[in-house]
Amino acid sequence: MSRKLKTGVIGLGRIGQIHLSNLLYHIPNAEVVVASDVSDAAHEFAVDAGVKAVRNAEEVIHHPEVEAVVICAPTPQHVPYTVVAARAGKHVFCEKPLDVSLDSIETAAEAVRENNIKLMLGFNRRFDANFSRVRSLVQEGKIGEPHIVKITSRDPAPPPLEYVKVSGGLFLDMSIHDFDMARYLTGVEVTEVYVKGDALIDKRIQQYDDIDTAVIVLTYANGAIGVIDNSRKAVYGYDQRVEVFGSSGVAKAENNTPDNAVYFDGEGGHSALPLHFFLERYEKAYRSCIQAFVDCVVNDTPSPVDAHDGLMATAIGIAAGISLREGRPVRLEELTGKLQVAGSRLHAAP
Amino acid sequence: MSRKLKTGVIGLGRIGQIHLSNLLYHIPNAEVVVASDVSDAAHEFAVDAGVKAVRNAEEVIHHPEVEAVVICAPTPQHVPYTVVAARAGKHVFCEKPLDVSLDSIETAAEAVRENNIKLMLGFNRRFDANFSRVRSLVQEGKIGEPHIVKITSRDPAPPPLEYVKVSGGLFLDMSIHDFDMARYLTGVEVTEVYVKGDALIDKRIQQYDDIDTAVIVLTYANGAIGVIDNSRKAVYGYDQRVEVFGSSGVAKAENNTPDNAVYFDGEGGHSALPLHFFLERYEKAYRSCIQAFVDCVVNDTPSPVDAHDGLMATAIGIAAGISLREGRPVRLEELTGKLQVAGSRLHAAP
Amino acid sequence: MSRKLKTGVIGLGRIGQIHLSNLLYHIPNAEVVVASDVSDAAHEFAVDAGVKAVRNAEEVIHHPEVEAVVICAPTPQHVPYTVVAARAGKHVFCEKPLDVSLDSIETAAEAVRENNIKLMLGFNRRFDANFSRVRSLVQEGKIGEPHIVKITSRDPAPPPLEYVKVSGGLFLDMSIHDFDMARYLTGVEVTEVYVKGDALIDKRIQQYDDIDTAVIVLTYANGAIGVIDNSRKAVYGYDQRVEVFGSSGVAKAENNTPDNAVYFDGEGGHSALPLHFFLERYEKAYRSCIQAFVDCVVNDTPSPVDAHDGLMATAIGIAAGISLREGRPVRLEELTGKLQVAGSRLHAAP
Amino acid sequence: MSRKLKTGVIGLGRIGQIHLSNLLYHIPNAEVVVASDVSDAAHEFAVDAGVKAVRNAEEVIHHPEVEAVVICAPTPQHVPYTVVAARAGKHVFCEKPLDVSLDSIETAAEAVRENNIKLMLGFNRRFDANFSRVRSLVQEGKIGEPHIVKITSRDPAPPPLEYVKVSGGLFLDMSIHDFDMARYLTGVEVTEVYVKGDALIDKRIQQYDDIDTAVIVLTYANGAIGVIDNSRKAVYGYDQRVEVFGSSGVAKAENNTPDNAVYFDGEGGHSALPLHFFLERYEKAYRSCIQAFVDCVVNDTPSPVDAHDGLMATAIGIAAGISLREGRPVRLEELTGKLQVAGSRLHAAP
Repeated sequence: MSRKLKTGVIGLGRIGQIHLSNLLYHIPNAEVVVASDVSDAAHEFAVDAGVKAVRNAEEVIHHPEVEAVVICAPTPQHVPYTVVAARAGKHVFCEKPLDVSLDSIETAAEAVRENNIKLMLGFNRRFDANFSRVRSLVQEGKIGEPHIVKITSRDPAPPPLEYVKVSGGLFLDMSIHDFDMARYLTGVEVTEVYVKGDALIDKRIQQYDDIDTAVIVLTYANGAIGVIDNSRKAVYGYDQRVEVFGSSGVAKAENNTPDNAVYFDGEGGHSALPLHFFLERYEKAYRSCIQAFVDCVVNDTPSPVDAHDGLMATAIGIAAGISLREGRPVRLEELTGKLQVAGSRLHAAP
Repeated sequence: MSRKLKTGVIGLGRIGQIHLSNLLYHIPNAEVVVASDVSDAAHEFAVDAGVKAVRNAEEVIHHPEVEAVVICAPTPQHVPYTVVAARAGKHVFCEKPLDVSLDSIETAAEAVRENNIKLMLGFNRRFDANFSRVRSLVQEGKIGEPHIVKITSRDPAPPPLEYVKVSGGLFLDMSIHDFDMARYLTGVEVTEVYVKGDALIDKRIQQYDDIDTAVIVLTYANGAIGVIDNSRKAVYGYDQRVEVFGSSGVAKAENNTPDNAVYFDGEGGHSALPLHFFLERYEKAYRSCIQAFVDCVVNDTPSPVDAHDGLMATAIGIAAGISLREGRPVRLEELTGKLQVAGSRLHAAP
Repeated sequence: MSRKLKTGVIGLGRIGQIHLSNLLYHIPNAEVVVASDVSDAAHEFAVDAGVKAVRNAEEVIHHPEVEAVVICAPTPQHVPYTVVAARAGKHVFCEKPLDVSLDSIETAAEAVRENNIKLMLGFNRRFDANFSRVRSLVQEGKIGEPHIVKITSRDPAPPPLEYVKVSGGLFLDMSIHDFDMARYLTGVEVTEVYVKGDALIDKRIQQYDDIDTAVIVLTYANGAIGVIDNSRKAVYGYDQRVEVFGSSGVAKAENNTPDNAVYFDGEGGHSALPLHFFLERYEKAYRSCIQAFVDCVVNDTPSPVDAHDGLMATAIGIAAGISLREGRPVRLEELTGKLQVAGSRLHAAP
Repeated sequence: MSRKLKTGVIGLGRIGQIHLSNLLYHIPNAEVVVASDVSDAAHEFAVDAGVKAVRNAEEVIHHPEVEAVVICAPTPQHVPYTVVAARAGKHVFCEKPLDVSLDSIETAAEAVRENNIKLMLGFNRRFDANFSRVRSLVQEGKIGEPHIVKITSRDPAPPPLEYVKVSGGLFLDMSIHDFDMARYLTGVEVTEVYVKGDALIDKRIQQYDDIDTAVIVLTYANGAIGVIDNSRKAVYGYDQRVEVFGSSGVAKAENNTPDNAVYFDGEGGHSALPLHFFLERYEKAYRSCIQAFVDCVVNDTPSPVDAHDGLMATAIGIAAGISLREGRPVRLEELTGKLQVAGSRLHAAP
């Protein structure tokens, strides 16, 4: 039987607990040696699950049995922990975004390359059955050459204003998933971004130079055009749909619902709302995502979501911010220097 | 260019007016020479449309220019007019049912055969795009050998009790369409009927020995099993769906709606009701149906819905009535004598 | 925090392993003390999960810490183990069917009553989100008084002939779920059964007096009519749909699919098949089902699926067999004596 | 009974014939006195329908019985004929676009105002059941304040290159319908346009400075954001969908199909393509559209699609062209002078 990967989990917030439970109960070729968090409640969660709990991330990273770490700490710690782990020869699964600075991402990427470890980012939506099926259809050529990509991504409710203040804004905390999805669905790089956005739900967000509603136009390297529409507040639930239109067809995926029962009375037909919460919507995607990480380490295959993917998603987010502020399309080349440092596949050196 | 068939319309009630309008405006290879009805309002309708109006059906049948008659008179007159027309060498399109008595149907069938005219019955649902697509899928072998046939047929509201009194009851005024559909979808004959039915909507219907809710099980000659569910009152509209399940797949058709807009608010998804009224639901089917009649006469091809089809639909209806009254499955062979007289393809003589 | 129910699992075949995993990883208020099976592989499964494994069911039942047993042994052992457990004062969760004999079921029911334990049967489909939503809509009066109930239940592939030989036949191994569903959806008892069935998929099944295709008509105590259509082989997957039509509307549920992506090419639209396998289709239902058992014991609330439910499902199955053999509708009253012994709510004594 | 409007039809090409047939057979309160076209085939069509045919548009306009003209001539003649008709006191229904020059549209608008006639433009999609239902839902407040509007509009196949040469390009021959739809769905004016477009289907179109694929971002006066995606070639048929997302919900409409039958085989589910051709897709919309014109004249109510609507659609199209050429968002204010001359409701004088 295949060996079990010995993992350590850093950060036992909402997402950390999900990864911990999945590693324990649903990933047959993994086990959890140790987990770290500063809160007592988190410790209790770990201990209840039979996992040793410590307070310090470095203890997890340097634990002699740990082969791979799962970083679910706040974003500012993603790169520092990744670098420490890489230098310690430990593989890294890190929640998105890797960072909000391209320089910082490059630092992590270098550490990964130099120490020859695996780095995988938690873009869990790539592992959703709907979206991965659309990508497969594109890859299999069912719709021909992609021409138009459409992504609808709307949250059920805006986050607290305190969160907005530190989150990096709509593009880096929310749309970043969609930027990754835009690249994932087609396998083609994005080269230009144009944003039209506004604060239509709650004007107070403007004090943090943020918006809550956006339409984002992406240009791909092959001329295809993408469009993302984002809202912080869809009262009917979590709205997550994609469509890829191409030269010989179209592929699309709708929302998931808690049940598909429908009833008709004298007024009309009535059906369920989309799944409201991202943890329900992406429950299986989270599981498949961490499974993919364990598999790529155990089988020594390439990471399915690597530092370059993290870099590009953040770069598109930064370009989107410039476009919004300056009211013009922004080519990613404007951020080129950094991208070259990162060894981007987009602008690969000869 | 193809010649125009000269037709006469007998009876200008609701259905007669539809056939008249279709023949005038939508059937390029037909014209209407004359129409008959006893009411002044009907005459006005004909005259407004530029068609000569008379009071007497025989005037239509014997009009020297008329090549084909469209009989939309009350059911008791279907066979008499058919016989007169056949003897006059005029082709006949007749509304369903041809008659509620198998003997009477045989009389009409004989007149048709002896005078070598075309007789087509107005089972308009055969020409509905949904149902004819399901039949095509079955014929093309997409679902293999049919095993189970399901027909849902529910009216939006019960007819007036006065109508029930003379209509022949649920089986002969409403389910008869479904009996024809059951044969049409598979191309296989029905050999046995079992009915479970009750008056669940309005008990007063029981005084006419009728019911308003029924589940009807049909056995086909090849062992396949059919089930029809009927209700006189679906508050959400006209419910008309079919499904054929077979050895290598299933084909099904849903209701049509006035529009396909859907909206989601905080409560759920909301969509339109099915088209409420049979004239809207089957508007195009009525047109295609009368077109098929004109074509079969003009091109001298077999009638797509002939006397045998009328006979079988009525025979299943009569068997259903016996099953309901006696609480047992009834084989159509019990009515065999009459069927043989009718030259049924089911029990074809050697 | 709520206490944890200490359980023991009897039988670690496919279903036993599912219940064990759910109790361990997904039911917060349960734990598993011990499990029994005769096979080494099953023992390995238990030990891997950290559960003590024994060979003898009685060891599980009489284990001093065990409060409740989960019986996943073959059907003939359901009643014997239930009786032993009841006498030992242990609560029982038992896979369906409780038994294929009404007398035997009554024996178990008596033991349950006399020892005042909880007995819950594993009719897991009651806990499926689609079906429980339809039932809720009915209970909330959204569709008024039920008139017609339709259940489609088709397996993706027939079982091995060896299984058919001992399974009790289509009605008791497969349709029994639908008989329970028919009662569950409406909350009304069934009083009569009529079956039309045949061996359309594989004639060899006839040597065991069994069929593979059936349309089953149920009459409810309030006059409503139900119809179940069963097939052993739907090549497109596991087909599980329900519909309840009533005086003020209709509620229905469709199949679940692995993803909802659809693509259109020049030929048409193309979508996924229904989930193929019952373990995938009912994965969450299995979890909710065992959770409901644990909750009813911990909170001392009535069992949501009790001995009477088991009795009725089996009784309908027996009546269906008589109907098929004798070609006539069979009233459950014909089995009345036994039903009365069982203290049926259907014929409650004054 | 209501009086019949006496109409004359100018131009009997494909669309002219549709309007003529609808006026004759489906609009009870209209008749057709005379029709003009230069081709013999068109004359034959008119005569077959019992309508007098002439060669000269002016003969139609000045025919003493004609109260209203239906202009289906080529676009360059729309304004000249409208002006002549207005001066003759005849009401005008004119196919879209009114013109491709804002000055020219203003000339027509002045003639309409000065002579106090009705002018209605043939934006037939406003009368489509799906789209008008979405608009109604928005108007009824079902989705709250609109935030994001999405319009998908893709043709089944590109027009001949010769047509592209003279059509005014994608924005003025195809997207113009979508620009009108964007205003219709919300009832709010558009203030800014940004386009990303390319020739992805056939590079030869570039020699006419045209494109075949576009994503168009619209900004509304109230801050809402619209996005249109256009393609000249959707191999699966005519793709026409809309969605309006707002503060309390979302409303959307899907494509129409020739039938709704679906079949499942071992590979998946299979359904029909969208209706392929705009004449089928909008058959009923054409009818409702010309009915609306007749009604507004007969009842002396405001034209539902007036000169201002024509002006705005063309203005958005012109702005889109500038945006594409200059790679920047273009505010409609840049075209302000002309808009003010036109008495735009957008910039109404005090």
